[in-house]
Amino acid sequence: MNENAVDLWLTRFDTALKAGDVAGAVALFRPEAAWRDLLAFTWNIVTLEGPARIAAMLGDCHARTAPTGWHRVGPAESDGETTSAWIAFTTTTAQGTGRLTLRDGLADVLFTAIADLTGHEEKRGATRPKGIVHKASRTRETWSEARTRRRAQLGAEEQPQVLIIGGGQGGLALAARLKALNVPALVVEKNPRAGDSWRNRYRSLVLHDPVWYDHLPYIPFPAHWPVFCPKDQMGDWLEAYALALDLDLWLSSSVESAVWQGDRWEVMVRRPEGTTTLRPVELVFATGAYGPPRAIDWPGAENFAGTLIHSSAYQDGRNFAGKRALVVGAASSAHDVAVDLWEAGAEVTLIQRSSTCVVRSETLMDLGFDIYSEEAVARGIDVDRADLLSASTPFSRFTDGQRALYQRIRAQDADFYARLAASGMQLDFGEDDSGLMMKALRTASGYYIDVGASELIATGQIGVVAGHGVARVVPEGVVLDDGRTVAADVVVACTGYQSMHRTVAGIVSEAAADAVGPCWGLGSGVRGDPGPWLGELRNMWKPTAVKNLWFHGGNLALSRFYSRHVALQLKARMEGLPVTVWGGPDQRGA
Amino acid sequence: MNENAVDLWLTRFDTALKAGDVAGAVALFRPEAAWRDLLAFTWNIVTLEGPARIAAMLGDCHARTAPTGWHRVGPAESDGETTSAWIAFTTTTAQGTGRLTLRDGLADVLFTAIADLTGHEEKRGATRPKGIVHKASRTRETWSEARTRRRAQLGAEEQPQVLIIGGGQGGLALAARLKALNVPALVVEKNPRAGDSWRNRYRSLVLHDPVWYDHLPYIPFPAHWPVFCPKDQMGDWLEAYALALDLDLWLSSSVESAVWQGDRWEVMVRRPEGTTTLRPVELVFATGAYGPPRAIDWPGAENFAGTLIHSSAYQDGRNFAGKRALVVGAASSAHDVAVDLWEAGAEVTLIQRSSTCVVRSETLMDLGFDIYSEEAVARGIDVDRADLLSASTPFSRFTDGQRALYQRIRAQDADFYARLAASGMQLDFGEDDSGLMMKALRTASGYYIDVGASELIATGQIGVVAGHGVARVVPEGVVLDDGRTVAADVVVACTGYQSMHRTVAGIVSEAAADAVGPCWGLGSGVRGDPGPWLGELRNMWKPTAVKNLWFHGGNLALSRFYSRHVALQLKARMEGLPVTVWGGPDQRGA
Repeated sequence: MNENAVDLWLTRFDTALKAGDVAGAVALFRPEAAWRDLLAFTWNIVTLEGPARIAAMLGDCHARTAPTGWHRVGPAESDGETTSAWIAFTTTTAQGTGRLTLRDGLADVLFTAIADLTGHEEKRGATRPKGIVHKASRTRETWSEARTRRRAQLGAEEQPQVLIIGGGQGGLALAARLKALNVPALVVEKNPRAGDSWRNRYRSLVLHDPVWYDHLPYIPFPAHWPVFCPKDQMGDWLEAYALALDLDLWLSSSVESAVWQGDRWEVMVRRPEGTTTLRPVELVFATGAYGPPRAIDWPGAENFAGTLIHSSAYQDGRNFAGKRALVVGAASSAHDVAVDLWEAGAEVTLIQRSSTCVVRSETLMDLGFDIYSEEAVARGIDVDRADLLSASTPFSRFTDGQRALYQRIRAQDADFYARLAASGMQLDFGEDDSGLMMKALRTASGYYIDVGASELIATGQIGVVAGHGVARVVPEGVVLDDGRTVAADVVVACTGYQSMHRTVAGIVSEAAADAVGPCWGLGSGVRGDPGPWLGELRNMWKPTAVKNLWFHGGNLALSRFYSRHVALQLKARMEGLPVTVWGGPDQRGA
Repeated sequence: MNENAVDLWLTRFDTALKAGDVAGAVALFRPEAAWRDLLAFTWNIVTLEGPARIAAMLGDCHARTAPTGWHRVGPAESDGETTSAWIAFTTTTAQGTGRLTLRDGLADVLFTAIADLTGHEEKRGATRPKGIVHKASRTRETWSEARTRRRAQLGAEEQPQVLIIGGGQGGLALAARLKALNVPALVVEKNPRAGDSWRNRYRSLVLHDPVWYDHLPYIPFPAHWPVFCPKDQMGDWLEAYALALDLDLWLSSSVESAVWQGDRWEVMVRRPEGTTTLRPVELVFATGAYGPPRAIDWPGAENFAGTLIHSSAYQDGRNFAGKRALVVGAASSAHDVAVDLWEAGAEVTLIQRSSTCVVRSETLMDLGFDIYSEEAVARGIDVDRADLLSASTPFSRFTDGQRALYQRIRAQDADFYARLAASGMQLDFGEDDSGLMMKALRTASGYYIDVGASELIATGQIGVVAGHGVARVVPEGVVLDDGRTVAADVVVACTGYQSMHRTVAGIVSEAAADAVGPCWGLGSGVRGDPGPWLGELRNMWKPTAVKNLWFHGGNLALSRFYSRHVALQLKARMEGLPVTVWGGPDQRGA
């Protein structure tokens, strides 16, 4: 019955598309329908909201995409109101995967994504490389000889197709995907070891997301990996990952500048042995989900008698035992830094400038990570399936689910929130009560997964001064915007980071940064989220307004999933496939 | 129907054991039955052949083991003559797994193995460690601080429970298992990097076994890993493995001596910074499936005008371009060395002393690795299931299957064998035609998986002198035992290795080596396999005649599977579980 409805819809859709009947295809969608496409139709990452946008896209794309072979994969699932099923299809260039959700026989949500480029599939499983031609040969080049030659030539006789700036999880996951697709890539990492971007963070840092959400592509964490991974263990995992997968990294190296020369970038890289010019075709910024730290621009900062640093420079509270410490800010870094200082024996006060969305880690694990959990794995939802499930929900729809989730969380943890509020801490759940994840997607700021700080705050062991920012710094402390002076020996500005496009300004040009505009954020209209509404994260993992310049990043989960889509776009371009971007930066006014 | 037969048998067996009715339990076995036990009943690795042996074991073990809860796991499978099913049970100390094969309602083969020690289970999946207590603490020790402390104390304030000699796949897999069981272990590796035991081998070496057979515990190779892994890539994988799993290794270190001091070993370890004395409770030789190289003891060797080396010292043929090279031996190393020399442009002759079992790699992949293949994975037989399937067949039964396999192989590759024989090469398939794998198990010698040499031999590009050994060496070459002199510039003695117990002689004592006796080999009565018949590999992965001295090794597959059983034995001893070994070295006359 459910299967019939899905199959019937797919047949009608297929028929309409084959006939070039865009209106007929669009008539299969509800007025409220949303269609999320990852590359399959648009060579872009877009969500089309409503029949008009769907019609516009299909009108432009259906002929050159020529989608066909629509069929259901596996059983349909029904919740009474909607029926959903995994689907597959093919286009002129790719094999597609997706998910269809019907309501009253019409599409409520359609999700389409490229799974593999036809003729350029990843060689895996049954098609994996043999690794050796089993035949004696006097011209044999061994694996290690080939690697030695490749590394010697890379950047000299041979140019990488793709230069990736940053060797954290984003850069390494992308490099691994590109290698599996035979796209020559080089990662430039400023630190001496892969994984140092984690090791260099503050002493007590432990991942806030659980292991099931954090897997890298190709080599999942083993079954006895801890739920929450300490930063140095993650650093070692990333280093081992780069070694095991034979990724090409230039360590202790930094990109000084990049200039587009018409067909390639000219990139100056400073290495320990001197400066080299590279000429990659594609340039990927994988420097984190954030750009440079926000500068500390409080008046009088230069006169402070104690230590004043940004959280990005904070490493260890043990220098501040017995000292009066102010932590300015109240999001994740601020909470973690406050705990680290408290643990070291400092007397800590949080200066909370604006309200924070706090969720207890245990509660979030129980309620918020249902598809990334051991139980999900037991139900057959592995990380790849969970990723597709997540991706199949457009962000606009995701908000509703998150709002419902946070109603449950707030009810369950009502006592916790009451105690925390009684400490003076200002709490929120987003402007539309959609909670932490939507804050992360919209502004990447203003939230904390409680891994210990909230109890210290609730019991007064970490003080809170809420609702006031820093007006200026004086030698003995800071003056708040209500005129109060708070004395301090050390001030840690957990004041966040600029958008990633500011990193572009420093390396390419101000003009390029301006052309690209802000990264991240959906354009939801909430404070801090750049408008207008895009329905997708701005500039991430898709073509930007600057030719051959890409952004890849985010937490481990986003780095894992979207590295595939960045790699597919780069591979398609290298192979000269017909890649016409629909709804790109020139068309969206972003 | 099939399920009923299995369930009925298990119920009767359970009832008999509970009633202490050994005769009744034994009556459920056929006269030809075999029971293979990995630790569950015997705390040993033994195969009991026939009702008398089964009765003897059960009489001694059933009371202290108190097995119960026998039940089938999953459906039974029938081939018309036999019905097989996976089973589970519990004992006083462990959860057991196994497999039962019935014929005419009676047990033809029973396989029992410890899966987990009750109360000491590996923490994995749903019971994995959390990795952090989510609570601020002024006594917090971070992961990296704990590691720094652990490594500083290891061998000084803290002694490892287990000292593992050798950091190849055997040592690392065991160290990983022990770590997952919270058994403090230290690996001493003579080379400067983990994985060097592979890197240091001859230039062109590529694994002869396919990837599906080669996985290490916990971190399987990714889906795009090559079927046949080049040696240096394997080296890097092992190094990454040790890093990712945070194993404790002393590199560039070697064990000089080990003396049992009543309750612990006293082990002298030479490290770059000096000599240290360690006091581990358990000492594991994971120095490879072989002992030291067989010395080159040909008369006159010292007078040879050219280069004369053992294969273990051979690395690269490129020093011998244009030279006349003799390779003495005709097993795997000899073939690989011959190819390497030929590729380098040497003029190569194999001196085949005795016949060789040769199998084409492709054929072996097609026919011999059916449960370790991409097809098997697609059928749901992952590496763990395949390992249990392999282990569930006693070696005595395995021989029959192998004989049938080699009939098919010889028929399929009749042309290949005819061409190879025409070159003068002497071929065999084992004394009972059971082929390569049985040769590997019995003598670990005399076989070659053809990855290219055979074509060169068949076409005369590598010469063969068969049926004669080296009588003596003269300055210009070697004199064979028929009096012929073969001129040579370089001679590589691919004459094999001694048994692992000879490594014990060098480190512990001659007396200890004598007490242990030869390692490996089933005692099948064939040439080179030490008697008498044991039905199991001699001394491997189980208690030896020397207290607290163990051997762990073998190819990647054996290292993977049996590392679990070695680790379980060491864990049980550390926890003081009642570990009474049945059929141990004192009882078997080995």
